[in-house]
Amino acid sequence: MELGLIGLGKMGGNMRERIRRAGHTVVGFDRNPDVSDVDSMEALVEALPSPRVVWVMVPSGEPTQKTVEALGDLLDEGDIVIDGGNSRWTDDIAHADLLAEKGIGFVDCGVSGGIWGLENGYALMAGGDPAHIKTVQPIFDALKPPGEFGWVHAGKVGAGHFSKMVHNGIEYALMQSYAEGWELLQKADMVDNVTEVYRSWREGTVIRSWLLDLLVAALDEDEALAGIRGYAEDSGEGRWTVEAGIEHAVATPAITAALYARFVSRQDDSPAMKAVAAMRNQFGGHAVHTDAPPKTSDTPSTPGG
Amino acid sequence: MELGLIGLGKMGGNMRERIRRAGHTVVGFDRNPDVSDVDSMEALVEALPSPRVVWVMVPSGEPTQKTVEALGDLLDEGDIVIDGGNSRWTDDIAHADLLAEKGIGFVDCGVSGGIWGLENGYALMAGGDPAHIKTVQPIFDALKPPGEFGWVHAGKVGAGHFSKMVHNGIEYALMQSYAEGWELLQKADMVDNVTEVYRSWREGTVIRSWLLDLLVAALDEDEALAGIRGYAEDSGEGRWTVEAGIEHAVATPAITAALYARFVSRQDDSPAMKAVAAMRNQFGGHAVHTDAPPKTSDTPSTPGG
Amino acid sequence: MELGLIGLGKMGGNMRERIRRAGHTVVGFDRNPDVSDVDSMEALVEALPSPRVVWVMVPSGEPTQKTVEALGDLLDEGDIVIDGGNSRWTDDIAHADLLAEKGIGFVDCGVSGGIWGLENGYALMAGGDPAHIKTVQPIFDALKPPGEFGWVHAGKVGAGHFSKMVHNGIEYALMQSYAEGWELLQKADMVDNVTEVYRSWREGTVIRSWLLDLLVAALDEDEALAGIRGYAEDSGEGRWTVEAGIEHAVATPAITAALYARFVSRQDDSPAMKAVAAMRNQFGGHAVHTDAPPKTSDTPSTPGG
Amino acid sequence: MELGLIGLGKMGGNMRERIRRAGHTVVGFDRNPDVSDVDSMEALVEALPSPRVVWVMVPSGEPTQKTVEALGDLLDEGDIVIDGGNSRWTDDIAHADLLAEKGIGFVDCGVSGGIWGLENGYALMAGGDPAHIKTVQPIFDALKPPGEFGWVHAGKVGAGHFSKMVHNGIEYALMQSYAEGWELLQKADMVDNVTEVYRSWREGTVIRSWLLDLLVAALDEDEALAGIRGYAEDSGEGRWTVEAGIEHAVATPAITAALYARFVSRQDDSPAMKAVAAMRNQFGGHAVHTDAPPKTSDTPSTPGG
Repeated sequence: MELGLIGLGKMGGNMRERIRRAGHTVVGFDRNPDVSDVDSMEALVEALPSPRVVWVMVPSGEPTQKTVEALGDLLDEGDIVIDGGNSRWTDDIAHADLLAEKGIGFVDCGVSGGIWGLENGYALMAGGDPAHIKTVQPIFDALKPPGEFGWVHAGKVGAGHFSKMVHNGIEYALMQSYAEGWELLQKADMVDNVTEVYRSWREGTVIRSWLLDLLVAALDEDEALAGIRGYAEDSGEGRWTVEAGIEHAVATPAITAALYARFVSRQDDSPAMKAVAAMRNQFGGHAVHTDAPPKTSDTPSTPGG
Repeated sequence: MELGLIGLGKMGGNMRERIRRAGHTVVGFDRNPDVSDVDSMEALVEALPSPRVVWVMVPSGEPTQKTVEALGDLLDEGDIVIDGGNSRWTDDIAHADLLAEKGIGFVDCGVSGGIWGLENGYALMAGGDPAHIKTVQPIFDALKPPGEFGWVHAGKVGAGHFSKMVHNGIEYALMQSYAEGWELLQKADMVDNVTEVYRSWREGTVIRSWLLDLLVAALDEDEALAGIRGYAEDSGEGRWTVEAGIEHAVATPAITAALYARFVSRQDDSPAMKAVAAMRNQFGGHAVHTDAPPKTSDTPSTPGG
Repeated sequence: MELGLIGLGKMGGNMRERIRRAGHTVVGFDRNPDVSDVDSMEALVEALPSPRVVWVMVPSGEPTQKTVEALGDLLDEGDIVIDGGNSRWTDDIAHADLLAEKGIGFVDCGVSGGIWGLENGYALMAGGDPAHIKTVQPIFDALKPPGEFGWVHAGKVGAGHFSKMVHNGIEYALMQSYAEGWELLQKADMVDNVTEVYRSWREGTVIRSWLLDLLVAALDEDEALAGIRGYAEDSGEGRWTVEAGIEHAVATPAITAALYARFVSRQDDSPAMKAVAAMRNQFGGHAVHTDAPPKTSDTPSTPGG
Repeated sequence: MELGLIGLGKMGGNMRERIRRAGHTVVGFDRNPDVSDVDSMEALVEALPSPRVVWVMVPSGEPTQKTVEALGDLLDEGDIVIDGGNSRWTDDIAHADLLAEKGIGFVDCGVSGGIWGLENGYALMAGGDPAHIKTVQPIFDALKPPGEFGWVHAGKVGAGHFSKMVHNGIEYALMQSYAEGWELLQKADMVDNVTEVYRSWREGTVIRSWLLDLLVAALDEDEALAGIRGYAEDSGEGRWTVEAGIEHAVATPAITAALYARFVSRQDDSPAMKAVAAMRNQFGGHAVHTDAPPKTSDTPSTPGG
């Protein structure tokens, strides 16, 4: 079938390639003319046979919002828009309503797989009307991994991104779990070679996983991770997962811990800990640090308070 | 080679079988005569050629302590004891010292794999003197998984169990991660079939893992887990991991969250939350519940305080 | 001065009394005619001299929303509405915009003090235009505590409720802190009388506070809190504090822990822990509990996994 | 009465002064001759009438251990040693046993109050035999605050320090609570003056406390705490509280969050977050930071993974 694909960055570019390999025709558009197949969104729409299917693969929030609005103007009744970015599920519902006014269908699709997806396939979690899903199924089949898993029609509009959001929330906590264990092994000085211990876990253990494999690959490149700063961005889904938990009174302490660790990792200095240091100084006369931090202290200090 | 194996429970019994399949001779002893090959620890020791190798596979703490002490009396210089249970690494050091007085070697070995180990092999993390490890290597080779991973000589005595402890701490947090996501999907009512979403994650996603496979297997048996109470024991390693983190000033918030969730899961009622309810009542006149809890409330109550 | 007061529940009723004691005239309206001074909101508005000042003290969300909308219809340019409930600051901004269309002023005011406010005064955190604040200052002066603290003009519209929200978030975490300590002292069986230890902390310690005083009062009524179930509602501000933290990438682990403990306290059974128990059963053959929970277990179980 | 006092640092020196003001005789010894009344521990013991009472006020761990051992050699049957430092309760039991061999009594006493204790009195939590407590009661009366609270005989040997440990655990979490709220108000840019909001909370609110007063005092000196680094030591009791919770299967998530925040505050870079960054890079090609961190990012980044 023929597909329009908007957004040809790290993810979108590889997805175009994988879909083409499966024998489909992809007309790609990106703001970057070097990677674009057409000059404009209008040209993309014109290049597609009706009913058209357009996959949007741009950052969530305003970029996706603007792209959906523009497609709402350009497309016609019976066409379908798929949002394959990392939109919040609440945006999906608004986008579906907007497009439905013109009879344009909407499918949201969470995509996992990162830079490995081109070769291994992308796991897909889709939400939307079964008829819309059926129409675009050939594209999903082209993108998904070859095995029996990696694809689900999760439910109504929003269900795809909601599932992907929870997937990413879990992902945050899994990464934090392996990371905490790694820091402990690094600091405790009990094992001869932390990388070899992690490598051994890749088979036969309860904790074997793809993320473990990836961490071992990273450690093979730089066993102390000396060249990497302990600084981690967050991409929205972790926040939304915690917020969805709060909305439904579901405690998510491990996922939240992972999110907060990322927040703190990006601070040069912690205002909260300034306040703690200030209080300690007030009641106990404990010295405060005013400038460069001293060497890391692992042992409790002489008590006061 | 020939091996004495003390403790033929769920783990030990299967390990005896796997070692025998590899062509070794195993003399097993257990308090339960139905599964035991010999009548006593003395008989086990007598049945082995010198230098003897005895694998201890009994619960950590007092049972392991008593077994090691008994072996210290029964064995001779040049023999080797392997503790394959879930002992704390600090116990290993004491046990190694005790046995060293008589010239008996000691190896600690963390074992992972659960009930799947018989067929798939057991992941092994060993600590001890390289010469001792070399002597018992044929047993490790028989137990370990067939692939290139799943076995590591982690370092000196204690390093095996320390590695296994961290493995289990990570395991706690991984399980908590998948569990939080599952509760959120259950409660949010956004997806049609939570099991199918989890199943789809088994391929192509960042979060694919063996634990995910196991959770899907459990959901296939009982999709709402209606027949399972939300009650989780902890086996010591989770506690020790958090304590080791504290000793080394390593924050382990995700692992700790997982441990605490287990503590709370075992309480009929929470004393801490009684105290919170009592304070709310004192300042805000908020009603306290005195008996059976009302239906679960997901929405915030009318404010006060 | 004269004031209209809508909402005469636990908080509003006492506030009417305190304002009257200060010599002001209060026209109160409540859906409950037994406590109401007038029959309707219309009658309340008619009874007030122009420019009118109306204090809204009803539950946040829809009740406040509807009351503000009704007042928008009934009031005139130059009148002022004060929302003294526990509204979210984002609602304040919408309400101020709505009323500003007709030239009606809006002030948001967070109120703390609970059932003690009638005698001790209510702490007030207000947001809004300085001119509006000045107009209603006599009411604030009547409500606030007699000392030098307890009142702040925090900033623009929304700043009052934002401050009160953070106040309540802190309150959650403070309560959780005392509660955790109480559970530990109860369980550890080290001290003869936990209430006496808590009572002793009321003077000279770093942790003396009003919440501590209240907890001791509760313990004096029921030293084991045997008559109170460990069940705690949450009133919205705790959730909003965590969400505001997430919006600004501010980690709030203690406040979040307090919120999550309340969520869990309201569950008959934890879906997340069902999933953990199910996974443990899958890999380790660990028994699952299917019905009534066994007695609480404090000690680690025999290991597996 | 007459008292020997060993350790005349920040705490001990002020305590000597307060006891003397109450009319008692204090013979003080410190390694620092400038503040010492006698030249040696031996001289201190000789200067006291029999039965002697000696208060030890030195850092916990080895310094206290050595002092107690030395006093065990120097003192006689019927004498009493009080450990007023921040020893772990488990040490108390060992110390009491050691001294009991010679018939020397032992009392442990947790002391709170910091640098304010000289004027306001010190809160005291004592553990030990009632007869020993009775003997030294005049000293407790001299030290404790003037009001009806601030002193408790908590129970047997160890109960005093156990109570003080829990007090300090709570203290950690209370400080963290106020600190989280402060960071949020600082970052959210909703209120005009954060210090004034905190100051207003000092009266009439649910969260009024001495720690709040102290934080306001610190903010009055430096409203942005610009001169204080977000670096906080921990003095042992926080760790022990968490460990005691683990021993008794008591979840202490707020206290633990406070402890972990301190651990992280002392790190130049977080190994755990290096591992998280490394994994993100592996699966998503997310850029890692290799050197100086960029400006703090509060907003989610463009998604991947």
